[in-house]
Amino acid sequence: MSRFYRLVVSCPDRVGIVARVSGFIASQGGSITEASQHSDLATGRFFMRYEIQADSVSLDAEGLRQAFGPIADEFEMRWALYDTALRKRVVLMVSRASHCLVDLLYRWTAGELDCDIVGVISNHDDLRRLVQGHDIPFHHVPVSVDTKAAAFDEVERLVDSVSADCVVLARYMQILPPRLCRRYAGRVINIHHSFLPSFAGAKPYHQAYDRGVKLIGATCHYVTDELDEGPIIEQDIHRISHCHDADDLVRFGRDVEKAVLARGLRWHLQDRVLIHGNKTVVFA
Amino acid sequence: MSRFYRLVVSCPDRVGIVARVSGFIASQGGSITEASQHSDLATGRFFMRYEIQADSVSLDAEGLRQAFGPIADEFEMRWALYDTALRKRVVLMVSRASHCLVDLLYRWTAGELDCDIVGVISNHDDLRRLVQGHDIPFHHVPVSVDTKAAAFDEVERLVDSVSADCVVLARYMQILPPRLCRRYAGRVINIHHSFLPSFAGAKPYHQAYDRGVKLIGATCHYVTDELDEGPIIEQDIHRISHCHDADDLVRFGRDVEKAVLARGLRWHLQDRVLIHGNKTVVFA
Amino acid sequence: MSRFYRLVVSCPDRVGIVARVSGFIASQGGSITEASQHSDLATGRFFMRYEIQADSVSLDAEGLRQAFGPIADEFEMRWALYDTALRKRVVLMVSRASHCLVDLLYRWTAGELDCDIVGVISNHDDLRRLVQGHDIPFHHVPVSVDTKAAAFDEVERLVDSVSADCVVLARYMQILPPRLCRRYAGRVINIHHSFLPSFAGAKPYHQAYDRGVKLIGATCHYVTDELDEGPIIEQDIHRISHCHDADDLVRFGRDVEKAVLARGLRWHLQDRVLIHGNKTVVFA
Amino acid sequence: MSRFYRLVVSCPDRVGIVARVSGFIASQGGSITEASQHSDLATGRFFMRYEIQADSVSLDAEGLRQAFGPIADEFEMRWALYDTALRKRVVLMVSRASHCLVDLLYRWTAGELDCDIVGVISNHDDLRRLVQGHDIPFHHVPVSVDTKAAAFDEVERLVDSVSADCVVLARYMQILPPRLCRRYAGRVINIHHSFLPSFAGAKPYHQAYDRGVKLIGATCHYVTDELDEGPIIEQDIHRISHCHDADDLVRFGRDVEKAVLARGLRWHLQDRVLIHGNKTVVFA
Repeated sequence: MSRFYRLVVSCPDRVGIVARVSGFIASQGGSITEASQHSDLATGRFFMRYEIQADSVSLDAEGLRQAFGPIADEFEMRWALYDTALRKRVVLMVSRASHCLVDLLYRWTAGELDCDIVGVISNHDDLRRLVQGHDIPFHHVPVSVDTKAAAFDEVERLVDSVSADCVVLARYMQILPPRLCRRYAGRVINIHHSFLPSFAGAKPYHQAYDRGVKLIGATCHYVTDELDEGPIIEQDIHRISHCHDADDLVRFGRDVEKAVLARGLRWHLQDRVLIHGNKTVVFA
Repeated sequence: MSRFYRLVVSCPDRVGIVARVSGFIASQGGSITEASQHSDLATGRFFMRYEIQADSVSLDAEGLRQAFGPIADEFEMRWALYDTALRKRVVLMVSRASHCLVDLLYRWTAGELDCDIVGVISNHDDLRRLVQGHDIPFHHVPVSVDTKAAAFDEVERLVDSVSADCVVLARYMQILPPRLCRRYAGRVINIHHSFLPSFAGAKPYHQAYDRGVKLIGATCHYVTDELDEGPIIEQDIHRISHCHDADDLVRFGRDVEKAVLARGLRWHLQDRVLIHGNKTVVFA
Repeated sequence: MSRFYRLVVSCPDRVGIVARVSGFIASQGGSITEASQHSDLATGRFFMRYEIQADSVSLDAEGLRQAFGPIADEFEMRWALYDTALRKRVVLMVSRASHCLVDLLYRWTAGELDCDIVGVISNHDDLRRLVQGHDIPFHHVPVSVDTKAAAFDEVERLVDSVSADCVVLARYMQILPPRLCRRYAGRVINIHHSFLPSFAGAKPYHQAYDRGVKLIGATCHYVTDELDEGPIIEQDIHRISHCHDADDLVRFGRDVEKAVLARGLRWHLQDRVLIHGNKTVVFA
Repeated sequence: MSRFYRLVVSCPDRVGIVARVSGFIASQGGSITEASQHSDLATGRFFMRYEIQADSVSLDAEGLRQAFGPIADEFEMRWALYDTALRKRVVLMVSRASHCLVDLLYRWTAGELDCDIVGVISNHDDLRRLVQGHDIPFHHVPVSVDTKAAAFDEVERLVDSVSADCVVLARYMQILPPRLCRRYAGRVINIHHSFLPSFAGAKPYHQAYDRGVKLIGATCHYVTDELDEGPIIEQDIHRISHCHDADDLVRFGRDVEKAVLARGLRWHLQDRVLIHGNKTVVFA
């Protein structure tokens, strides 16, 4: 696998940004293999993502960052330069349902998810064997009404102890406390089992069944301290009919959920998702 | 085009319904070309729709109805027997946007919608020429805050004067008064330009844009006196991304709206939609 | 899980079939939970599938079969009556790629596939651990140009030794000999990684890439002795663009393949697929 | 509607292209509203499309072209700079089926297709009224086996007389002679009513019906002198089942055809489609 630098930028839009950034990269000898830009006309903000072959540049990542600093300052950029040699460290959080976990573990072993899965945390012990079979540490952190605060202190400790870059709620049925949502802002990805904003909250398939909708969906989004209200990364749907009962909806839903979560996570790991207020720019 | 009788039934589920109904049809010599059944396990209600070649039966529609009456009574059926020789009479209601109207008129001339379009009512005069070019009467009934009551009296008079079986709100931007919703219950079809229950009410595409969803949708449903809450007949979606502004959403939305409305209306005209509480059984 | 009898019939179409069959079921006290019929107007053939609650009938499966025999004879039916208490016995055949196998094993453990997986045969040893981790016998039967005949004798012996009802080629990259195709006709299901009839034969994703198509697909079909020409059960597609190279097509393809195979197999196991010449009727 | 310049380029890939082009645009004060690039790793070719606000640049289109010339030469570019003030001139060719024509005319009047429709040519007279109702010249050029050569001379004369930039075969059922295909290479767009390369040639829906596929499709492509083999711009599909006869396939097909053609044509008119050998890069 080739090594790349990924330069991800957002800033107020104005003439000359692309020229300045691409000129900088060219001056370093950088070979650009993928380039994406977006001008948001409503807010006047500009977004870009460049993928640069690492071995085409003489500076290392830190050197590039320092050299790029003055340009970033001049254009008031929020920016990051990622080195794909440093794989993101991911913690998965699950409950009892295994479909998203099985899917993510398959994709990870197949090389579709470019990250290190450094641990799985669950409030139940059911999926221990599956996780350990992939040589990944499994942490059972039970959560009850009384122990909630202590449990999430433990979750925080575990996440911090492995220096996780990203936490994935892969059908983790608990709500993260607001403090953690804010502390890990932009780094916690959830899969919600409805086509948000429809059917936020609990038991969305049963809500969908009761309303008699003809499509069910799933939504991958960043977690914020407002439940099911964070920036949406990806959504998809599955067609249903009167033939299907609530159990069928759950079954179809599993397929949509795992597909949507896998796409959203893959894009996040490839630094393709830029948060913009409560929305996302996804350079898919 | 062949002529058919369509027998549409719902009743409490129990052993022997299909045997009794199909036995009755066979005893009349009836050749069944399409048969659909559904048992709703949650409510214990049974639904069926049979399509029978008219010339295979010696009785006429009224004769069949009388012969079938005792069976219907025995099983406590809600039922109807339709004769496709009597085409449904449809009134379209539109405002200024023409996309659904153009689409329905094309499908009607192409033979996809088996009905007579007996009139178009609009609160604006813009689409008069298009309608009259298809030799369909056009009625301009302006609606303002002050004239609303009188306007809808006029709408009611027009609908009744043509003995309409079905009223289609093809992007008619006014809300029907509750009295008409109730009077024409199960006979008024609306296209809402969102994936209900998301974004009910006004300007759904702008709501969708603001929320940052990745799919937009449209919903075809029966009108009830609760706005955007009636039984859903059909829904579909279109994928969007950060590249698309609210105008693009409107443009994509037009395609979804007209497709969803056309499918929903076609099924309604073919007596494929059975209302069941606030849900539908669609034998598509 | 409730126990059902499934009556699956095809016969020349004529008046009274439904009445006769449903009358028979009613006379046995049978409660029908799902009923599907189809009249193929082009060929004059009729197809039906009834699902009957087993405990609503006093006869057992064999008794029902004997009682139904005279009706079947009278209408010249090809028919079968299945008892869901007897789960179908399935052999999976794989090569090195694990995506379909992982997916089927997940669905099987989740209860989505109502069968016994009685063995996995592979021409490579790579997937042994995965299979044995699910407590399923794994058989490594290498195939080379020289050993082909002996290898397929061994495959046949293994399939027969477990009394398999169904063989699934879950990305098994070898071609079954015509003799086995004929012997197991209607019982061998393959997943082909293209939208047949496009790109039959080898390396379909590379063929698709070279042709510059904008959608790739997968096809689940019964195997016949004409390669990639058997009756199609299910197909689906995934959208691609110029951004995607042949490796991306392979990656997207995996998702389509496993979804299409899982749906096709599920329908087969539920006796929803009726073969009709080189086509299928699928009561999905 | 704002006025834009569109710079569309392909050239051998090397370091510094984006820097050079965007530097040039910035030096002219150009405000870039949309930018797309693609590096084809298999062939080492680079593609780009920039949309520039016209009033942000002091030079006019011709001045820009002259200023850009040396850069284009240096990088061996194939390129064009379009001015959206000069709308493309489009000739539609149709036969008897009206669905694509009705759809394109609606989209054109709704402002979705940024072009002048300067004429419609048909080998039948059926659609004259529809066309003339939109104040577009209609030309009836009958084609028979004997008159084919003369007829296509007349077609050529008509296309040339209106200085057409683009010819759209909107279900024109005749095959253009190779000479015209070559003369108008890259400017003639066809809609084929199958998911190519499946079912090339005549009556694709009947071919699809006979093969028993579960999806039908349509393909929008540039016409070359090899029938149904030109570069594909867009494709889509519609799900079908055993319930649908060949007429249903035709009906569903109409919806797919018109959607696919409209998308392909819109992208072409916006200079989003770059031909690359027998494939396309579509900056959609």
